Amino acid sequence: MTDTVGLVGLGNMGAGIAQHLLDQGWQLRVWNRSPQKVEPLVRRGATRAERPEETATPGGIVLSMLSDDHAVLELFGPQSKLVARLGAGGIHVSMSTIHPETARRLAREHERVGAACLGAPVFGRPDAAAAGNLWIAVSGLEPARRRVAPLLAALGRGTFDFGNDPGAANIAKLCGNFLIASSIEALGEAAAMAEKSGVGASRVIEMLAQTLFACPIYQGYGKSIVSGKFQPAGFRLRLGLKDVELALSAARSMDVPLPLASLIRDRSLAAINQGHADWDWSSLALEAAEDAGVRKSAAGD
Amino acid sequence: MTDTVGLVGLGNMGAGIAQHLLDQGWQLRVWNRSPQKVEPLVRRGATRAERPEETATPGGIVLSMLSDDHAVLELFGPQSKLVARLGAGGIHVSMSTIHPETARRLAREHERVGAACLGAPVFGRPDAAAAGNLWIAVSGLEPARRRVAPLLAALGRGTFDFGNDPGAANIAKLCGNFLIASSIEALGEAAAMAEKSGVGASRVIEMLAQTLFACPIYQGYGKSIVSGKFQPAGFRLRLGLKDVELALSAARSMDVPLPLASLIRDRSLAAINQGHADWDWSSLALEAAEDAGVRKSAAGD
Amino acid sequence: MTDTVGLVGLGNMGAGIAQHLLDQGWQLRVWNRSPQKVEPLVRRGATRAERPEETATPGGIVLSMLSDDHAVLELFGPQSKLVARLGAGGIHVSMSTIHPETARRLAREHERVGAACLGAPVFGRPDAAAAGNLWIAVSGLEPARRRVAPLLAALGRGTFDFGNDPGAANIAKLCGNFLIASSIEALGEAAAMAEKSGVGASRVIEMLAQTLFACPIYQGYGKSIVSGKFQPAGFRLRLGLKDVELALSAARSMDVPLPLASLIRDRSLAAINQGHADWDWSSLALEAAEDAGVRKSAAGD
Amino acid sequence: MTDTVGLVGLGNMGAGIAQHLLDQGWQLRVWNRSPQKVEPLVRRGATRAERPEETATPGGIVLSMLSDDHAVLELFGPQSKLVARLGAGGIHVSMSTIHPETARRLAREHERVGAACLGAPVFGRPDAAAAGNLWIAVSGLEPARRRVAPLLAALGRGTFDFGNDPGAANIAKLCGNFLIASSIEALGEAAAMAEKSGVGASRVIEMLAQTLFACPIYQGYGKSIVSGKFQPAGFRLRLGLKDVELALSAARSMDVPLPLASLIRDRSLAAINQGHADWDWSSLALEAAEDAGVRKSAAGD
Repeated sequence: MTDTVGLVGLGNMGAGIAQHLLDQGWQLRVWNRSPQKVEPLVRRGATRAERPEETATPGGIVLSMLSDDHAVLELFGPQSKLVARLGAGGIHVSMSTIHPETARRLAREHERVGAACLGAPVFGRPDAAAAGNLWIAVSGLEPARRRVAPLLAALGRGTFDFGNDPGAANIAKLCGNFLIASSIEALGEAAAMAEKSGVGASRVIEMLAQTLFACPIYQGYGKSIVSGKFQPAGFRLRLGLKDVELALSAARSMDVPLPLASLIRDRSLAAINQGHADWDWSSLALEAAEDAGVRKSAAGD
Repeated sequence: MTDTVGLVGLGNMGAGIAQHLLDQGWQLRVWNRSPQKVEPLVRRGATRAERPEETATPGGIVLSMLSDDHAVLELFGPQSKLVARLGAGGIHVSMSTIHPETARRLAREHERVGAACLGAPVFGRPDAAAAGNLWIAVSGLEPARRRVAPLLAALGRGTFDFGNDPGAANIAKLCGNFLIASSIEALGEAAAMAEKSGVGASRVIEMLAQTLFACPIYQGYGKSIVSGKFQPAGFRLRLGLKDVELALSAARSMDVPLPLASLIRDRSLAAINQGHADWDWSSLALEAAEDAGVRKSAAGD
Repeated sequence: MTDTVGLVGLGNMGAGIAQHLLDQGWQLRVWNRSPQKVEPLVRRGATRAERPEETATPGGIVLSMLSDDHAVLELFGPQSKLVARLGAGGIHVSMSTIHPETARRLAREHERVGAACLGAPVFGRPDAAAAGNLWIAVSGLEPARRRVAPLLAALGRGTFDFGNDPGAANIAKLCGNFLIASSIEALGEAAAMAEKSGVGASRVIEMLAQTLFACPIYQGYGKSIVSGKFQPAGFRLRLGLKDVELALSAARSMDVPLPLASLIRDRSLAAINQGHADWDWSSLALEAAEDAGVRKSAAGD
Repeated sequence: MTDTVGLVGLGNMGAGIAQHLLDQGWQLRVWNRSPQKVEPLVRRGATRAERPEETATPGGIVLSMLSDDHAVLELFGPQSKLVARLGAGGIHVSMSTIHPETARRLAREHERVGAACLGAPVFGRPDAAAAGNLWIAVSGLEPARRRVAPLLAALGRGTFDFGNDPGAANIAKLCGNFLIASSIEALGEAAAMAEKSGVGASRVIEMLAQTLFACPIYQGYGKSIVSGKFQPAGFRLRLGLKDVELALSAARSMDVPLPLASLIRDRSLAAINQGHADWDWSSLALEAAEDAGVRKSAAGD
């Protein structure tokens, strides 16, 4: 806990991570595109970096938690001052959910200056980040993985190691998000049937979430579907779609068809046309209700 | 526990239930189409019924656990001697997974002689039945539900009450089995992608089954998919398809489309054409692997 | 043209066929459940049958054009007086679109009294029936096919012979209707894209229906989709769904998955929940428009 | 016919077009990446261009027929010497099937030097190109469209005008190719059912291609599916997939879901994993046969 660690990207997730690391006594240099996100963390003891590269020290560690591949490439891609400054022995821990191929490409470019780029996407929402309750998948060069292990242990409640392929952790992350989307679709269809039959979605989902599916995803999304409250969003439908499209794209690059992911993608586009892009991801379930002619009860207004 | 209870249908599930009730000190009169299933239970203290109707006493309780709607209708449908003998105050607890409409129709016919028919389908495999670890969904007339509550409590580790509609419990059961099938499909597609990427299905599934999806279905089916061992079957693919088709049919009767169930149905037919009808339901995951060109690793031979 | 021919079922299709046969100089005995349909044909020279069996003469020919399997079985199934009266050497030409298995079962039962049952479903709408412009698929026992050939030649502008299996002609018919439904779905999706892009569905569909797809189905349904007028219906969406479900059911009995038919079935259910059951089949295209957020232009109000 | 026209891209399609224009008396300057394709055309009177830009004259017309967006952008994108040389009043007629957005972007860049870029994708195979039997969709600036009208008239048997949006003609083209793919999928599923039923795919497809679907696509692809001969390819499955993916991508940019295109995409990936990437597009029908357990008859080896 003696190192100073850099952190770029202070959206809801990044801010939660920063706060938790400060709580644990880590020293942080932080940067964000919109500077107003920096102030509260400075008050808690973080050092403000005026430019992204100032979060790095030669041979040090920088975490990033950014919105998409484009944002990651902009800061860490070719000609990155940040990566140049990290230099030999430096480690970039990329926590964003990105395309596995982007992760691999970043790793190759970091290695040109002797730095390592680890893929380390996380499972959990901002409140889990702030509480140190994330699950973390990590992959990339072994010595770098070893060195950041204590940092990742501080950040989350469990780290899963996916070996040397820097894209592997993002494959695992995309599989996870695809499984979440599949659960929402399945719950949505079941809820539509239960609702229209008069049995009611809530009793069916409650039973299943206490028995066969007694796990966080079914409990959390099930509750959200039953409540019919999709705003404010915990995780926006458009971001869920982004991840499903990343999974489809990664699969496509290997000629792997994912028909269930295709179904979810098409449903999500229909949901966007209903004006639900910024509703919670669980509102995808409304599409099944809509097609079933179930509006009042399963839907949520 | 003073009543003698009848039980018809001694397949793997029915035999497990019988054994557990005998272990708990219940008196049972049992009948099965193939008489050799009766002998072991008689040795444990059950009374052999020579004909189905001999399992019933006037005003008593009979449980049934049969293979499908047809088998249930044959024993309990119009002109049933068994229902006639149950008569006024008798209760038939139908534990088979059947069409909700069949359950409703049976209830109407039982009521003609003053008997009640409860839908009480269960979640769990034969070992759970024998250990009293089933989950039970129940619905039908309230006084009958109240009277059988101790019996159901003895049978399982939890009963979920779905009210007066005798078809409601089967709606809930079909929702559950559809969710299981959806999980298998989702796991199969994720496994195919993970496998082809070189990450490996097992590491991805193990992570997810310990975290977001830490629940019996993902753990059990995930393990089965990873192992690639689909024989002997815990639950045959053809029976899984039967239940998905019941869900589609029940939904159809209400004009509810279930596109994910349609996808699973079509996959299951392809699996049957691969010769997997009697493999474990989890072998449905092989279809995604096959389409992805992943044969050796994710498949199971 | 000397024989008197029976005809049961005087809906729009049956009435068109009757009228055309009378125009050609055939003698007809006709029956319909609702007797008011009979009167106009009697005025044109048909003989009224008071009961269905009166349309038949021993060893003669009876045509039927009924709404579904149930209606056909009711008149021609077990204990049919009509079939009994046809008797040895009699021929029933079943022109309804029914399940191939129903056609086979009917044939077996007709054969018990020495009669033949041919499957002879038709392609074409009522105006084509009245104008003798139907296409006819026929199958069943060869001598019977030979004997009715002149009658079928009078009825349509082309007969296609599918051999001895009495179910074969209905297989061909269901394939045809499934292909029609597929065309509507494809046109609907293309129209939604063209419309939302600003190109406009009409110009795209007109081009394609003059070139690659210069055939009746694309021209007719394409025009209907572009016009956005779906009432009155030429062929009701609910009847189109019935035929797609017959195709799925026939395929299911052979373990053949038809994922495109599943997609169409699910779309059709959604359309029914939009209140379009009695709109023209082409209104299925509105579902793609709806999901695409294209309402005004491609939809039709 | 007095102008000299440039043509870049002499694959099967481009060579056919070149040959036909030479046959009609047009003067051509041609260029191709692999120079051996140039020689036969030079012998027929074309002028060889050593570099792409030599096909252009200031204010003249250049046709292009290239394999994909990438190839078009390489020759006509930013810093294009070819476009620079065309300059004010010059017209680039882009006949390749590309993303509508690429066509729009090209048009904007051509306009910077005062040139116009028309989208003019074609329907037809190489033999149709050589015979002047293509159908052409065209869009882009009106004066340019007017000026090239005689050239397009010489090239094809019909031109369809889609107005000023330079991307519009490619929207229409992608709709067309999506409809073709849909026809193949529908024919494949119908063939699988007909084959497994014993009726045989060939009789069913022949009937339909003579009646409801008496048009080039059903006749051509239907014949190919029935024959089971998929090599050599008329149009490769991988190119068909490319076009379906362009349609999906163009639709995605407008939030338009195309579930039937998704189904075809997933089928195509499975076909690629069967080793069919370079088989004829119609071999997509084998996937339905494979899933139906129909191998010998409908498949083609």
